[in-house]
Amino acid sequence: MTDLTFRRALLSDLPAIITLLVDDALGQQREDASSPPNQCYLDAFAAIEADANQLQAVAIFENKVVGTLQITFTPGLSRKGSWRGQIEGVRIASAYRGAGFGEQMFDWAIEQCKAKGCDLVQLTTDKTRPDAHRFYEKLGFVASHIGYKLAL
Amino acid sequence: MTDLTFRRALLSDLPAIITLLVDDALGQQREDASSPPNQCYLDAFAAIEADANQLQAVAIFENKVVGTLQITFTPGLSRKGSWRGQIEGVRIASAYRGAGFGEQMFDWAIEQCKAKGCDLVQLTTDKTRPDAHRFYEKLGFVASHIGYKLAL
Repeated sequence: MTDLTFRRALLSDLPAIITLLVDDALGQQREDASSPPNQCYLDAFAAIEADANQLQAVAIFENKVVGTLQITFTPGLSRKGSWRGQIEGVRIASAYRGAGFGEQMFDWAIEQCKAKGCDLVQLTTDKTRPDAHRFYEKLGFVASHIGYKLAL
Repeated sequence: MTDLTFRRALLSDLPAIITLLVDDALGQQREDASSPPNQCYLDAFAAIEADANQLQAVAIFENKVVGTLQITFTPGLSRKGSWRGQIEGVRIASAYRGAGFGEQMFDWAIEQCKAKGCDLVQLTTDKTRPDAHRFYEKLGFVASHIGYKLAL
């Protein structure tokens, strides 16, 4: 299997990350693909960088950004003071889906959570993404919860 | 309706918060009710305090802690750089359930998310908590997602 490399995202990766966010059935309706990046993305990237408990990651293949995800490391009192790794914004470039890149990216992400001392990795996925459900269940994730959202 | 007050939790609230975490069908199996608090809770409280994007809150009624929740304010690139408020560890003391305290606590929590500039409030709840599902749906939350967890 072709190996990817993974690292923390740099500001120079931002256009590629936005392209990944847009390259998605739900994302194409709610993101802004304009170039240079909309200021909203620059502000968000700066906020992520400023928070030691955030890790915006990119997956690199042949010197190109082909995947991204964000891990939020969250301390909490419940479950005897467990840290959780919450994963959001998971994307693999459409041209590379089905090649096992998602599994590699998740293996790496789970290792980051272990290294940070997390006892749990959690994420939610839209009910309209059946491929994602199969993917997470294959990785051992348990669909034990309902994910509620309230738009403000 | 009896009004509660709300504030950021102090270290001196920790025993009361642990009591709330234990006072729960799932929590009683996975928390440690010993006094003084297990060091794991002290460490978690310190980590929450050290993170400007965490808010451990308590609800006060007649000078007693009767509720708690944790808000994690999370910057993110997706949804045009939206901030999210993620709510975890929601508890109302069993003696006060059904009195509308949960609604008051959530109204306050949602205001905190708005004040921080969040576009979205999100949470997951165990599938085995039907009362919680009705509660969140009444508040306007939409059950659009599946919540996956992976124990490490």
